[in-house]
Amino acid sequence: MANPVNPPRGMRDFLPMEKRKRDSILDLIRGTYAAHGFQEIETPAMEDIARLTSGQGGDNEKLAYRVLKRGAELDEAVANGGELADLGLRFDLTVPLTRYYATNRAQLPTVFKAIQVGPVWRAERPQKGRYRQFVQCDIDIIGDSTSLAEVELLTASVNVLNVLGLTDAVIRVNHRELLVKLLNQLGIAEKDHASAMITIDKLDKLEVSGVVAELAERLGDKVAKAFEAWIASVDAEAVPAELAPLFELVEPGRLRYDPTLVRGMGYYTGPIFEIDHPSSGSSIGGGGRYDGMVGRWLGTDVPAVGISLGFERVVDLVSEEEVAEEQPAIVLVLEDDSVETTKNALAMQREFWAKGANVRLEHKPKRLNLLLDSMSANGYEAFAMINSTTKSLGDVEVRAIGQSVE
Amino acid sequence: MANPVNPPRGMRDFLPMEKRKRDSILDLIRGTYAAHGFQEIETPAMEDIARLTSGQGGDNEKLAYRVLKRGAELDEAVANGGELADLGLRFDLTVPLTRYYATNRAQLPTVFKAIQVGPVWRAERPQKGRYRQFVQCDIDIIGDSTSLAEVELLTASVNVLNVLGLTDAVIRVNHRELLVKLLNQLGIAEKDHASAMITIDKLDKLEVSGVVAELAERLGDKVAKAFEAWIASVDAEAVPAELAPLFELVEPGRLRYDPTLVRGMGYYTGPIFEIDHPSSGSSIGGGGRYDGMVGRWLGTDVPAVGISLGFERVVDLVSEEEVAEEQPAIVLVLEDDSVETTKNALAMQREFWAKGANVRLEHKPKRLNLLLDSMSANGYEAFAMINSTTKSLGDVEVRAIGQSVE
Repeated sequence: MANPVNPPRGMRDFLPMEKRKRDSILDLIRGTYAAHGFQEIETPAMEDIARLTSGQGGDNEKLAYRVLKRGAELDEAVANGGELADLGLRFDLTVPLTRYYATNRAQLPTVFKAIQVGPVWRAERPQKGRYRQFVQCDIDIIGDSTSLAEVELLTASVNVLNVLGLTDAVIRVNHRELLVKLLNQLGIAEKDHASAMITIDKLDKLEVSGVVAELAERLGDKVAKAFEAWIASVDAEAVPAELAPLFELVEPGRLRYDPTLVRGMGYYTGPIFEIDHPSSGSSIGGGGRYDGMVGRWLGTDVPAVGISLGFERVVDLVSEEEVAEEQPAIVLVLEDDSVETTKNALAMQREFWAKGANVRLEHKPKRLNLLLDSMSANGYEAFAMINSTTKSLGDVEVRAIGQSVE
Repeated sequence: MANPVNPPRGMRDFLPMEKRKRDSILDLIRGTYAAHGFQEIETPAMEDIARLTSGQGGDNEKLAYRVLKRGAELDEAVANGGELADLGLRFDLTVPLTRYYATNRAQLPTVFKAIQVGPVWRAERPQKGRYRQFVQCDIDIIGDSTSLAEVELLTASVNVLNVLGLTDAVIRVNHRELLVKLLNQLGIAEKDHASAMITIDKLDKLEVSGVVAELAERLGDKVAKAFEAWIASVDAEAVPAELAPLFELVEPGRLRYDPTLVRGMGYYTGPIFEIDHPSSGSSIGGGGRYDGMVGRWLGTDVPAVGISLGFERVVDLVSEEEVAEEQPAIVLVLEDDSVETTKNALAMQREFWAKGANVRLEHKPKRLNLLLDSMSANGYEAFAMINSTTKSLGDVEVRAIGQSVE
């Protein structure tokens, strides 16, 4: 049986050192995006349930956590078999972003370059590496229909990957209009495009033979054969004109044209991206242009393009060393609990702060080595004993933790 | 009628400049606490509803947002009139902290000094300055029964207030055991202590006469008269022995002994604190020792003391200047959309990054002044025009925004 004091199923506590690593990575991501002129915004964790389940979120809508109405409204809903929830927890950052833009447009720059970092919630079956609360890092450019928007998004993404030491990551790129052209060319009727894309999207898992078989089953042998012939002839070096500016302007070697890239969501209208890293079994991010979506709540067309980094996968890839802090950290061990010793410890704490250190005070325990081991595991590399005669830095003997204690 | 694209009632979007101010303040708070050896942790936004409503959270439990069960479990609950929710959103950070400690104790330092920063949710009636999602900043020390814990918490709090420029803030201090002694001395039976504390806690609002009247009504004239006599004789300078180490060791002048301080929650067992600032109508933080609570899920006694900063009130008090960033920020305006100009802009962006600047690219709009006004409102103080001939920094003329454009 589960420990009765665990967090809810599929959700996680973070220990201090894990939290520190996560926050260091987030700081690097935020700082890099901000250097590109992206501005961080924040939306509430909840949105009206009707908005969350209005069709924008695809399959994720079914995974939304729904929040109960309260008071008389709930009583009435229960009595009449009505809708029990009026709010829901966001399952991605895109639906809240488009709502935010509609709400606040008048106060935002004409070209709005947004950073959003925060938890999202999905009631998925928990499994390895998949959580019910997890962090996404999104950047979006709203209001720029030119490919400068894609170039900035991709440049910012490449710079983030570099700063995190993920220089082996590659961004695969395709274009939704090219996909549509391809489907027409394969003889697939427009009504079957969505179904065909779902099948082609499985290339990673099913490989070519599996996709060909599924296409044959769903759309007939002719389509399957045409696809088989097409994929054998694909030339990933022949970047089409629609994507040429991206390949010309983004750091050489970091983009790869992938004519088979589909991306799950139905709302993409232009270039689409997916970030791969050789050490990760699945993509670590993705995005694309979605010109139709933002305008929906405004009754006007607003171009938009975004890319989302799967933070949980990124954390697993980034090494501790890449984000280690340089701040010195020292433990001052109080030899007794007298007011005099405490006063001295507080004074020495101020002296070490002035040198830029993180200074932790600890009572002297029965077994000093156990304390020092624990402090070492928590990032402290030095310690000093403090007693009622420790009046100035000259009285303090700083020792490295690990050095023999006596 | 409300705008159909607003965030849910009582919840807020943050515009880029608001978000920046909030994050700068949070960074200062986190950094100061970390310098004291506090370590940040994170718990999920949700906890099991049974735990959230187990009595620890006082009146706030009634304000918890409840999250619907899913699938067959929900169907069954609806059919049988059972409990509809299995999870709830946290309404404070203390209940999650005690659960976290019970879950992770074996992996934490013996004296655990925690920072928790994050949103909490309460289904309150929205009103000015009161929100349904708001941020709390807590520090807690678990596992130290000595007054060193209080001294560290209060020193850290004073240092945070100082770093935020809130040097006028004062921390009122009292002790629950002294309050109990007082109530006994006033002739109040133990069964009436909670009720008497609730009344005395209203001194701010009701003043002495109102409290005396309410005590008379609830507990009789004799108690009311005794209280009236006592409060007339109170000497805030006569710090009792129980609190003497705090006044001796924390920065002089920042603590004030307040023998009438009660604090709402029932779980306090020792010193209690409340942070006041002359520019805020209500307290901006508070806390105290709660030795009985953490052990509840462990079946053992664990001493604990914590203090929570009301972040939303703090944000209102801190001036923009106190937290302004020093990073230079420049807008590069692309005179046309050619690949050559874009390439030059990206190269100049790298040059300005090397100088430590935040560099934003913008298309040249019809009315340059409107763009520059908007950029200025978003923290950019300089701009430069870029075209197909801008090949090096020598070709770039940086101008201050606000300088006449032509």
